[in-house]
Amino acid sequence: MMVGIIMGSDSDLPVMKEAAEVLEEFEVPYEITIVSAHRTPDFMYEYAKTAEDRGIEVIIAGAGGSAHLPGMTASLTTLPVIGVPIMTKALKGLDSLLSIVQMPAGIPVATVAINNAKNAGLLAIQILAIKYPELRAKLKNYRTKLKEMVLEKGKKLSKEGYKEYLNKET
Amino acid sequence: MMVGIIMGSDSDLPVMKEAAEVLEEFEVPYEITIVSAHRTPDFMYEYAKTAEDRGIEVIIAGAGGSAHLPGMTASLTTLPVIGVPIMTKALKGLDSLLSIVQMPAGIPVATVAINNAKNAGLLAIQILAIKYPELRAKLKNYRTKLKEMVLEKGKKLSKEGYKEYLNKET
Amino acid sequence: MMVGIIMGSDSDLPVMKEAAEVLEEFEVPYEITIVSAHRTPDFMYEYAKTAEDRGIEVIIAGAGGSAHLPGMTASLTTLPVIGVPIMTKALKGLDSLLSIVQMPAGIPVATVAINNAKNAGLLAIQILAIKYPELRAKLKNYRTKLKEMVLEKGKKLSKEGYKEYLNKET
Amino acid sequence: MMVGIIMGSDSDLPVMKEAAEVLEEFEVPYEITIVSAHRTPDFMYEYAKTAEDRGIEVIIAGAGGSAHLPGMTASLTTLPVIGVPIMTKALKGLDSLLSIVQMPAGIPVATVAINNAKNAGLLAIQILAIKYPELRAKLKNYRTKLKEMVLEKGKKLSKEGYKEYLNKET
Amino acid sequence: MMVGIIMGSDSDLPVMKEAAEVLEEFEVPYEITIVSAHRTPDFMYEYAKTAEDRGIEVIIAGAGGSAHLPGMTASLTTLPVIGVPIMTKALKGLDSLLSIVQMPAGIPVATVAINNAKNAGLLAIQILAIKYPELRAKLKNYRTKLKEMVLEKGKKLSKEGYKEYLNKET
Amino acid sequence: MMVGIIMGSDSDLPVMKEAAEVLEEFEVPYEITIVSAHRTPDFMYEYAKTAEDRGIEVIIAGAGGSAHLPGMTASLTTLPVIGVPIMTKALKGLDSLLSIVQMPAGIPVATVAINNAKNAGLLAIQILAIKYPELRAKLKNYRTKLKEMVLEKGKKLSKEGYKEYLNKET
Amino acid sequence: MMVGIIMGSDSDLPVMKEAAEVLEEFEVPYEITIVSAHRTPDFMYEYAKTAEDRGIEVIIAGAGGSAHLPGMTASLTTLPVIGVPIMTKALKGLDSLLSIVQMPAGIPVATVAINNAKNAGLLAIQILAIKYPELRAKLKNYRTKLKEMVLEKGKKLSKEGYKEYLNKET
Amino acid sequence: MMVGIIMGSDSDLPVMKEAAEVLEEFEVPYEITIVSAHRTPDFMYEYAKTAEDRGIEVIIAGAGGSAHLPGMTASLTTLPVIGVPIMTKALKGLDSLLSIVQMPAGIPVATVAINNAKNAGLLAIQILAIKYPELRAKLKNYRTKLKEMVLEKGKKLSKEGYKEYLNKET
Repeated sequence: MMVGIIMGSDSDLPVMKEAAEVLEEFEVPYEITIVSAHRTPDFMYEYAKTAEDRGIEVIIAGAGGSAHLPGMTASLTTLPVIGVPIMTKALKGLDSLLSIVQMPAGIPVATVAINNAKNAGLLAIQILAIKYPELRAKLKNYRTKLKEMVLEKGKKLSKEGYKEYLNKET
Repeated sequence: MMVGIIMGSDSDLPVMKEAAEVLEEFEVPYEITIVSAHRTPDFMYEYAKTAEDRGIEVIIAGAGGSAHLPGMTASLTTLPVIGVPIMTKALKGLDSLLSIVQMPAGIPVATVAINNAKNAGLLAIQILAIKYPELRAKLKNYRTKLKEMVLEKGKKLSKEGYKEYLNKET
Repeated sequence: MMVGIIMGSDSDLPVMKEAAEVLEEFEVPYEITIVSAHRTPDFMYEYAKTAEDRGIEVIIAGAGGSAHLPGMTASLTTLPVIGVPIMTKALKGLDSLLSIVQMPAGIPVATVAINNAKNAGLLAIQILAIKYPELRAKLKNYRTKLKEMVLEKGKKLSKEGYKEYLNKET
Repeated sequence: MMVGIIMGSDSDLPVMKEAAEVLEEFEVPYEITIVSAHRTPDFMYEYAKTAEDRGIEVIIAGAGGSAHLPGMTASLTTLPVIGVPIMTKALKGLDSLLSIVQMPAGIPVATVAINNAKNAGLLAIQILAIKYPELRAKLKNYRTKLKEMVLEKGKKLSKEGYKEYLNKET
Repeated sequence: MMVGIIMGSDSDLPVMKEAAEVLEEFEVPYEITIVSAHRTPDFMYEYAKTAEDRGIEVIIAGAGGSAHLPGMTASLTTLPVIGVPIMTKALKGLDSLLSIVQMPAGIPVATVAINNAKNAGLLAIQILAIKYPELRAKLKNYRTKLKEMVLEKGKKLSKEGYKEYLNKET
Repeated sequence: MMVGIIMGSDSDLPVMKEAAEVLEEFEVPYEITIVSAHRTPDFMYEYAKTAEDRGIEVIIAGAGGSAHLPGMTASLTTLPVIGVPIMTKALKGLDSLLSIVQMPAGIPVATVAINNAKNAGLLAIQILAIKYPELRAKLKNYRTKLKEMVLEKGKKLSKEGYKEYLNKET
Repeated sequence: MMVGIIMGSDSDLPVMKEAAEVLEEFEVPYEITIVSAHRTPDFMYEYAKTAEDRGIEVIIAGAGGSAHLPGMTASLTTLPVIGVPIMTKALKGLDSLLSIVQMPAGIPVATVAINNAKNAGLLAIQILAIKYPELRAKLKNYRTKLKEMVLEKGKKLSKEGYKEYLNKET
Repeated sequence: MMVGIIMGSDSDLPVMKEAAEVLEEFEVPYEITIVSAHRTPDFMYEYAKTAEDRGIEVIIAGAGGSAHLPGMTASLTTLPVIGVPIMTKALKGLDSLLSIVQMPAGIPVATVAINNAKNAGLLAIQILAIKYPELRAKLKNYRTKLKEMVLEKGKKLSKEGYKEYLNKET
């Protein structure tokens, strides 16, 4: 069981590390590196074409602007590829989102929200859980914790009122 | 092995049937029905919560406008959910795309291109192929056929020139 | 007479509290809590389905990104639901707005401006005023005060000129 | 009990009549006329300022482009005003939507989806149902019928498969 | 000769004052005040309907979000109305721009760029110059100064190079 | 008294002729021709620089896509220039609108709605009416007729109901 | 002297042939074929890496949606690559445009307007004219003809008036 | 061999200097100055019409908002013109991008990404390299360095892990 995390530039790392963090939390092994579709196209080919043989089962790819890494990786392997559109300075990631999600028939990329690398990690785990049932149990546990955290905050807010709630936050 | 295909309205069926077609081509069993997040919320809950027990391993959900079906289904199961934004009359599916893809941390939806239900089917197969290796071989075969079809057309175009190529098409 | 204020996350509270503030100003009772469509779907069902029996007459729901809370709540009750699109980091609330407002025929959400929870509170009061005439009088009074405040500022500006007006502001 | 339906031009009537149709279905009395914010501003003032005294309890206002009718009407009455953004030729109603929904603090407009006058009618009924309980029962009945229609179609689709379902449609 | 400058809120004044500044530079008399379409609709009617009689020949109106002030003013007078879309927090003035510029046939608003109140002032002067020839001469002089300022900066840049030019700026 | 109507291509004429029609209705003399910023830049310079001397007092310029004609004309004359953004095939005139309206400080273009050449004509007349009082009277008359036409339609609709009204239309 | 014209699919040919037509008009040799970034990635690599050695001096690449062909080709060669964003059904080519133009620092694509393959051909000729002076003369001649065609139409319009001009067109 | 770099305002210089920097790195001579389409239209004509005779072979033009400089320059010369859309305050450069890229058939502008003047410089070099083979070698060398820098960072990241990598960055 192995996930590959790649990104177009190390400036994407502060976002993309959240995918790694969630995989660590679920004890899913991963490799992480930089693969630029435009500056290292040969390495991208090699990376994507050998991924399956190296034991990778899901690839998470983050990129911004003319974000070609997820789609090109998807074209070079039949492993599922999850795309993370990175927020950009001018167009705020709308360019990244459309570049990643609007793939032509034949080659899908599983696209998540702008900058939401955490969800890319969780989606990878949900995909792997089909084969590895121990992950399913962990996912249910994770969801339960999410739910309880929200319910607890909700109870606190409805009990204390918004003024006290906000005061305590600060 | 089973895929669940759901959509918010039978007006989405001319688009969503392409997911079913590709699953049939790969001999992947599927069920198909209509589940409206807004008009049948109780059925959506039941559908999503029992999907895993009914043997479904991946869900494909198509919806348009305030497209809540993929995200709500994803919140009610830990199975991977693939979202298909349906093109809308006024905003051309931009509303559907943003409603589906911009999920909060914790609950991912694997979003594909607007109206691209075929890619949703292929993504489901790529996900299942992690567990069912016979699908991997079929996927590679599918890609080879895609490639050969394009190469052949390209050879024809470069040999005949665009005038003859376009004349023959008509 | 009771209004329910809900939001998808406590990070929405600094915006959503303005709905509570205006209800307090009009002495309209309200409850406030956190209900996440995606992280607490069961609680959302329970909340929405029991709202009418608990005496709630209008629901105000705020959410951001793939903002499903207002629409899903609306699908689970026949009470009027007012949706507040929360501003998001990347797409500035355009995603929230389209997710909330573009509801399919059958299930409306009364959508207000991005981050304008104050107007959600006022709309709730305008709705309740149909049944509770004392609120109508208060609304007219509120409008008169709004008008007078603007007229006074306008007189000051036209008398003093923009330079003195801006100097005094600072 | 009375709803006022107004629109900026008779070219909006093919859309706006759906509000009237749903009010008729629920046996809610309504008046319907044309009020142009830009071409009949004096009549708009008169209409909005006398609406309450004429027994109107909710106003539905449809407009396209620089859609000022809903917001201006809202500024001239404390009755709840529901805005219907009409689809436009060039910008497809995005202009209408933003003109209607982005109201400043103080004067809300309850905005529904582009061209969705049916939902405007339903929202008016949901608002009136707070005061007129007979409407609540009708709304629940309406929702049940909506649900059953979808469930029936879903059963048909899952039983017959998409091919037979689509063939019968044609 | 008189220009009327109005704006929906005193928060627009830091932008709108640039219209006043340029009118002062050209010695064109103006009045300036706050007129809110939504909070002071009656005053807006009075303002617009009496503007011509008070000697105003051009109106400059700035507003943000659901920006109805320029269009409503235009509907209440036959004087030319220049609209200034004010930049907004969420949608950056795209809402203001579309609300102002997309007026229906019959009632034009002369729209300038987002936040560009200076150009609104200049446009007012260009309009008045048709009647008041002394303004035409001043406009030509203004353009000449604009041109010379740019040419001088250009010469400096081409002579010094970008490094020295930027160093001196800081 | 003379208005100049120019457009970037004769494909804009079916839209731009509405400016001419309204000028004819008001008996305002005009010249009309084709001036392409990109294909006839020298003629554009000549046209704009000699416009004032030829007796032109207002220029109406329509263009689509990278719509440079209104802004460049404005830079070459101090006459008021009214810009008409022409609807385009791909981006529906959003490109034309932004190219025309977002002018830098110093050189305004009075922009009207996408494809709304009629309003460009009316704005030209409103501008000329400052100098030529006979136009003011005609404008008031025009507004009165607009108002009466709408009021009459409104009365018909409220009397006959939407069914009969729509039947008669067809 | 040789230009390479490539496109992602033969469905792009009705647009892309305009690049070929203009090259033929200027007697510039070209090859034309189909290269799909996603369906034939190996062939794309081969095509781009051998282009220079095969004597190609400029590449024109058209693609739609997640349009990766121009940018990936640019990353695999140092020849200038001209990108043509193809109009798409849902997002009208905005997706194609952003995917092509928003390239990261290091790898430019010379992007032209949506569907404007003719301009891609002309840009290729303008680029080649730096080395091949005979093309410069042809370009000037082409511009002169463009200009004369517009001037002639303009004269006809100003002489005949819009009514006769439009009548003759039909 | 000479490149002309022009920009609409010296406020564009902090962006546009990156074009100059990359030309210096490749030892390509350039001139740099300010040419405002709107404030110095005559100088723009002179600049563009004499560029070829002064030995300029490629022009790089940066502009923001209603960005007419690249397109107008392109209409006045047959040299290739590269357009740099400058990021703007309100619309973030979407206005600049559409103003520059959506040129009509006949007059292309080679558009690069918003604010990406570095790529404009590189594109100019790629264009010149057709004629000046020494630049081709430098470009290949530049690409190799880009690739090595990325590969090195990637190796570091995969070896150290994201925590150590990010710690060292700070």
